[in-house]
Order: sequence, then C-alpha cells, then structure tokens
Amino acid sequence: MLTRIDHVGIACQDLAAKIAFYESAFGLTVVSMEVNEAQGVREAMLHVADSPAGSSYIQLLEPLGPDTPVGKFLARRGEGVHHVGYGVANITAALAAIGAAGVRLIDERPRHGSMGASIAFLHPADVGGVLTELVQAADADKGG
Amino acid sequence: MLTRIDHVGIACQDLAAKIAFYESAFGLTVVSMEVNEAQGVREAMLHVADSPAGSSYIQLLEPLGPDTPVGKFLARRGEGVHHVGYGVANITAALAAIGAAGVRLIDERPRHGSMGASIAFLHPADVGGVLTELVQAADADKGG
Repeated sequence: MLTRIDHVGIACQDLAAKIAFYESAFGLTVVSMEVNEAQGVREAMLHVADSPAGSSYIQLLEPLGPDTPVGKFLARRGEGVHHVGYGVANITAALAAIGAAGVRLIDERPRHGSMGASIAFLHPADVGGVLTELVQAADADKGG
Repeated sequence: MLTRIDHVGIACQDLAAKIAFYESAFGLTVVSMEVNEAQGVREAMLHVADSPAGSSYIQLLEPLGPDTPVGKFLARRGEGVHHVGYGVANITAALAAIGAAGVRLIDERPRHGSMGASIAFLHPADVGGVLTELVQAADADKGG
C-alpha cells in the first residue's frame, strides 16, 4: 500500500536559515516553496531522491504564528521531526483500508497538500506516536 | 550527497505489537530483525520501497532496558520518531564534508548498523533537533 517515504516533515523556527543549512551541509536543493494558510505554515520541499514510485523530500515547516499546529508543536517539543509522509497510489482506497484497520483518520477525505498532492493525516495516537500523512502525488504514483 | 531517505527510526515500547500493527494497517513486511547490544535495541526493518539508490524502510526500535538511549527517549518523549537515516554513497566522504560544514559528528568514524550497513550519527543540536543518521548500505549505494 505504501509506495515510498514521500517526505519527512521537520518543524523549524526560521525557514530561511534551515534551508541554508540543509543546502550547505547536505547539498540539497529547494524545489518548491509554499504558504499553506489553512495549515498555518510556510514550507519548503528539498529534493532527496527519485524512485519508480515518485520522489522523496525533506519538508521544512515554519509556523505562521504560535496558535498554529506547528507553532504549538514547537512550543511543546522544540524543533524536530513533526510528521512522516508516505506515498500511496490511491489515497481514497488507502484511507478506506487504513480506517478499516482501526486507525482514526484526521482527514476522512483527502485535501490539498504540497506541490499539488492529495494528502490526508492519520491520528498519531493510533500510529505509535507518529503523526502520519498519506500522499498521492499530483502526477499520480506509479507504484503499487 | 544524500541518495535517499533510507529509513525513519521509530521508538516503541512493544516491538512485536508495533510490527503487527504496521503489517496489518499498512501492508508492510519485516525483512530483518536484529538485536544490537552496543546500541541497546531490538529492531525490525520493514521494507517500504526500492529506488535506484537503494531501499527505504521503517525501522522499529524497542529498548533493551530503561538505561539505553531509546529507553531514555521513551521515558522523556514517549513513542514516536527517534531519528531519520539518509543513504549516502560514501559514508567516509560524507562525514568529512558534513563535519567541515560545522556539524558535530556523534560518530567520527562509521560503525556497524542494521543489515550490515555502515552508519554514523550526527548531533541533533546541529541538525535542527533531528537525530540524523548516515547510511551506506552493505551492498553499496548506486546513487551519487
């Protein structure tokens, strides 16, 4: 069902500084920057790898304010991994199967994510403390 | 320099239960189980995807006791993402470059990791709160 690790979402205080760090220390390149008002974040996607099922990224997340999900995460935990996103070929089918397995869905139906993807979050309490995101890429995954 | 997201390392209290969950909810398969006495963990690698540069996994980690790094992590933070591992083609060259960029290396030289890989950890305080691991797979990465 999962076709790849699509991205690791990392919460940070200063997006520009963190981009500069990942570029200089790891040689990565920003391929997309967006402001997602609905989620209260400014974000950058840094390309890590391509695979037959799609690409993998580091997603850097800076909150638009303290009362956003990422802002509250930073106040509670500090900078670090905020969530993990896995690629799926068909997000509607994946949500149905995962929901049937007893995992609570934060998003019952897919919504808009980075780079035109359809995404949905699963409840971290049902996934061993990991805020887990499903991602169907805009150009459709080719994997199984 | 980074060729792929090699794995997401997830700390858990009960490895067998968490394996059963990832198998049933996400359809993943365990491809390796090991006890690493030096790191104080029992671990399972669940295969997610293959790419030209190597494979990607979810790594589930159960501490061998409360006085281990993962045991202390669980006591402090609870279950969740413990670290992120990135594939590199040449871990010695990568460590030299990343160290030169000012990142403190927990491991100055590579040591043995899961599935015969050579691994090294970077200091999380220098990587935005993310415990970051470099992984040169046993069969050598084919990426750049």
